[in-house]
Amino acid sequence: MKKEQIVECDAPANSTEHAAEILLEDERVELKFPTGSTVLDIINRIEGLNFDAPCGGKGRCAKCKVKVTGDIFPSEDAEKEHLTEDEMAQDIHFACMTTANGNVEIDLRNTFKSAKILTEHTGYKFTVDPNIRKSFLMLEAPKLGDQRDDLQRLADALNIEKPVISKKLLQKLPGLIRQDDFQITAVVSGRQIIALEPGDTTDQHYGIAVDIGTTTVVAYLLDLKSGEIVDVVSDLNHQKSLGADVISRINYTIQNDDGLEQLRQKIVNELSQMANELVRKSNIRKKNIYTMVIVGNTTMTHLLCGLDPTNIAAAPFVPVVTDSISFPAPTFDIKLKPECIVTVIPCVSGYVGADIVSGILATRIYEQEDLSLLIDIGTNGEIVLGNKDGMLCCATAAGPAFEGAHISRGVGGISGAINKVYLEGGEVKYTTIDDQRPIGICGSAIIDIVALLQETGVMDHTGRLLEDKKDAAFQIIQIEGLPAAVIAKDDETDSGFDICFTQKDIREVQLAKGAIAAGVNTLLLDTGKTQDDIKNVYIAGGFGSFLSKESALAIGLLPAGLGDRIKVVGNAAGLGAIMSTLSAKELEQCQNIKKTVQYVELSSSAAFMDEYLKCMNFPEK
Amino acid sequence: MKKEQIVECDAPANSTEHAAEILLEDERVELKFPTGSTVLDIINRIEGLNFDAPCGGKGRCAKCKVKVTGDIFPSEDAEKEHLTEDEMAQDIHFACMTTANGNVEIDLRNTFKSAKILTEHTGYKFTVDPNIRKSFLMLEAPKLGDQRDDLQRLADALNIEKPVISKKLLQKLPGLIRQDDFQITAVVSGRQIIALEPGDTTDQHYGIAVDIGTTTVVAYLLDLKSGEIVDVVSDLNHQKSLGADVISRINYTIQNDDGLEQLRQKIVNELSQMANELVRKSNIRKKNIYTMVIVGNTTMTHLLCGLDPTNIAAAPFVPVVTDSISFPAPTFDIKLKPECIVTVIPCVSGYVGADIVSGILATRIYEQEDLSLLIDIGTNGEIVLGNKDGMLCCATAAGPAFEGAHISRGVGGISGAINKVYLEGGEVKYTTIDDQRPIGICGSAIIDIVALLQETGVMDHTGRLLEDKKDAAFQIIQIEGLPAAVIAKDDETDSGFDICFTQKDIREVQLAKGAIAAGVNTLLLDTGKTQDDIKNVYIAGGFGSFLSKESALAIGLLPAGLGDRIKVVGNAAGLGAIMSTLSAKELEQCQNIKKTVQYVELSSSAAFMDEYLKCMNFPEK
Repeated sequence: MKKEQIVECDAPANSTEHAAEILLEDERVELKFPTGSTVLDIINRIEGLNFDAPCGGKGRCAKCKVKVTGDIFPSEDAEKEHLTEDEMAQDIHFACMTTANGNVEIDLRNTFKSAKILTEHTGYKFTVDPNIRKSFLMLEAPKLGDQRDDLQRLADALNIEKPVISKKLLQKLPGLIRQDDFQITAVVSGRQIIALEPGDTTDQHYGIAVDIGTTTVVAYLLDLKSGEIVDVVSDLNHQKSLGADVISRINYTIQNDDGLEQLRQKIVNELSQMANELVRKSNIRKKNIYTMVIVGNTTMTHLLCGLDPTNIAAAPFVPVVTDSISFPAPTFDIKLKPECIVTVIPCVSGYVGADIVSGILATRIYEQEDLSLLIDIGTNGEIVLGNKDGMLCCATAAGPAFEGAHISRGVGGISGAINKVYLEGGEVKYTTIDDQRPIGICGSAIIDIVALLQETGVMDHTGRLLEDKKDAAFQIIQIEGLPAAVIAKDDETDSGFDICFTQKDIREVQLAKGAIAAGVNTLLLDTGKTQDDIKNVYIAGGFGSFLSKESALAIGLLPAGLGDRIKVVGNAAGLGAIMSTLSAKELEQCQNIKKTVQYVELSSSAAFMDEYLKCMNFPEK
Repeated sequence: MKKEQIVECDAPANSTEHAAEILLEDERVELKFPTGSTVLDIINRIEGLNFDAPCGGKGRCAKCKVKVTGDIFPSEDAEKEHLTEDEMAQDIHFACMTTANGNVEIDLRNTFKSAKILTEHTGYKFTVDPNIRKSFLMLEAPKLGDQRDDLQRLADALNIEKPVISKKLLQKLPGLIRQDDFQITAVVSGRQIIALEPGDTTDQHYGIAVDIGTTTVVAYLLDLKSGEIVDVVSDLNHQKSLGADVISRINYTIQNDDGLEQLRQKIVNELSQMANELVRKSNIRKKNIYTMVIVGNTTMTHLLCGLDPTNIAAAPFVPVVTDSISFPAPTFDIKLKPECIVTVIPCVSGYVGADIVSGILATRIYEQEDLSLLIDIGTNGEIVLGNKDGMLCCATAAGPAFEGAHISRGVGGISGAINKVYLEGGEVKYTTIDDQRPIGICGSAIIDIVALLQETGVMDHTGRLLEDKKDAAFQIIQIEGLPAAVIAKDDETDSGFDICFTQKDIREVQLAKGAIAAGVNTLLLDTGKTQDDIKNVYIAGGFGSFLSKESALAIGLLPAGLGDRIKVVGNAAGLGAIMSTLSAKELEQCQNIKKTVQYVELSSSAAFMDEYLKCMNFPEK
């Protein structure tokens, strides 16, 4: 039993259904609709489509132009007033004022072409359509014939069936929508109405992508309308003062009652400061930052959220959570507007974090036919092997040596670091960062040195320095009873001491490169593939960007014979964060990646131990 | 590409699918499953089923007994140890330890019979299965072969795919699940994990149902495990001091800057006090109250949420929100545990509130073939007409007179109120509440008086008191130049004054009863039905409970000829709140009812104005 006129507004019992074919940029949708539907009604039946009809189909804004053909009845008056002759000739009509009484074809491909495509920095195209959307709406004022409540009126215009809204915003709702005569901009994420701004503010729409490295934090300010990177800031991770690496920070939380809280505050305050700096430099308003998307390794994301990382440190290495985490900024204590949603990209396991998921996203391994290998060499070495049919990953404790840690004269990539070592006229030469006098050796040079020691025969394939090679390019001296190769002589350094590479340093490199090579081999064994099956090798991570491919291949860090397939992709984690901030689809893809990737625990793998022993030596010439 | 053993764990490519037939108490489910699934796997494929398997299918708790027949492989060892001979003879097996390699039939009818059925107070049976569930879990401790993160481990055991959890609870998660060796009770609502309690606390599970009337607030403490009403408290609505009725309270918010906040605090504090009283009287712990479900008219729910009701007061009578509202108790400032979820049942419109939706739920109008009429006579008079095919509703400004307001000597249903008036030996007699000396006239007596005035010919059918009827049962005197019937003489009252019913009082009753009768007729006209089509008339509301059916029919308040179909249902709104607290399905049904009910605005209805004029007079004898 329904009221007579209501029955007519819905689908009348005797109405016939018609078919609509809707062309989108990358798909074709078919659906049924009852006689008398407007073209806007039909378009709104497609879930997840963000069609721009500010006045909600009341024929007032003249913005819902679409190309539509078929059995239609457009409004002639409105078209004469608002359409050009060209548009009319091209079958352009107003979606809300055109009724369909038979089959129709609706072409939305040009309608959505205005959506920006981001190509810079990624090499991959994707539509800018962030998780947090802004929509300008021209609502109709209530009247006796339309007594919908304020929230319903808003939700209908946004095409949201079950809106979610905070009590605070709900309390402000009646005032806000009436402030500019029912013209309002809604900030929306899925079903959630995050903020409401009177008038049209769709131009002011920003987000921040963050990569929290154990060593360095990078934050990108993104224009969520144009897709542009507005600005970038980076800084050392302020947690460094409480522990240089993941394990020492976890230990700090175990050894200090408020250790976790201290570490949490360090990073949270750092993010607040970076947001402030970005806002200040770019002269935008903080309230127009609606989203922050964060990547980092599993320990970094735990510390950010104040989650106890204790169980990550010891077997069986169990995190509190690996799924994506999303809360408003105040829940994190990050000083952004309370409406700003902060999202942490999912992790895979205790030692394969959001940074790796993000790297997989950025390199597109997960959707390729070809088998790819991704090696992220940071403080740890994470390895991913796979393609669109599935991915395996593992983590090796490989990083510290390559970042200069555990190396007697090792330093990070700072001014004065020896960053390249080579032979010229039979003599050892080097370059330093910023051409300063040398202060130590950083990762890329460490690989060069080992490669050269082997090439010149000063070191044998077991890693032993041969002291009797007196005529070699390297000068070998004794330090605490063990041989060491001099890289920079005392008169070249400010300190007045030689910069040497010791036998112990070689052992550290052997452990590290052995772990990575063994990790790769273990994943290959697990999948029954060989090196020949690998079509792409992506080297990610700060250190990877400066690596000499030749040296890495020479010492067996990277699989021999893959030299022509190696691509250095830089900060893939940060890139994935940018993509996830700009596109809801990319962000969602991270969750799919997380689910698809299978983690292989190396600490209990007999195969890995076998491979590790095999890979410890350097390739025999 | 997948790992070999992982492929085997999933559905192998060469596996065949089998069919399971699952018998539930009120339905029969058929589904497909791959060879090698456990019976528990199969049961878990049924969405929304709350099957009790505390250890999550690890064969440790011996609780997942089910009757299952077909091509199965049970664990003989476990059955010998834990099952009785009787159970074995009846095909009882452990769901998690029984593998199915062909078609099976699983009988869960007895399994779920232990779910309590609540019949008291309602007359309708429904399963106690509240929105907020408690599940006791025996999780497996993590190991190298099972490195799931803590949240995943919990979500898997709860059979929740995308868990929602607060940051605070997430922070406590690792400690809480380890406190009692991975035995924990989870408090869950849909996908949301609300609280975690080490050990088995499923016995301590309470909720509160609240009916916020404009005049009276009633709160019921409910045992969410047994379905029993543990206790009830009621109190006058503390907002009364700031306005007696809906309109005066809305005006108070308009006329006072902090008026809305004052009114909000009154009701919020009252709810906190009532919760305290219930907890204290019943000797339960406040932290074990996990849900509060609230009904009330639209203005009451707006004031509770601090939502500006201004636009409800004037045409077009637009509320801020009519959908169900749900937030944690602290968001409302209600002093319950932060985890307690407070849910306000949805409204229909500015003058058809959650109380009416709740009344429709309790009377089951929405699911009956028969056409029913529901009249809720409180401060307003709301009318619903309909059945399972649809419902219309309207609101009339009918109530105040029947609650004693606008009546010169009117009072509420308090001690000393004249509550019944009748003729005995040709003389007017009355009773009072608590047999006290009379202090005024309450609603039920008001109807009696008007019916008697007409019956005795002291009043004509236009409502005019006939002063020349000197020999009638009623004594007619003059007050301020207008006639009035004496109900209680000066020597019977403490004040020493007569208690009279004036000509003006009769006009008030005429307006009120005319509005309700006209409302009913308007809904009948709108649906093309007649009074004869109505099979049930439900009279709800505090006043309705005490109403004399005969008097109401005599004065034309209720449709003539429907006397035999009238059922007085008391506080249907409160009853619906109880049902919604005890059952998630009933709570969900409220949202369906809200969507199904069509609101008819009488203020702009020409048909209503016609009927109103027709119904103003009393039935001619």
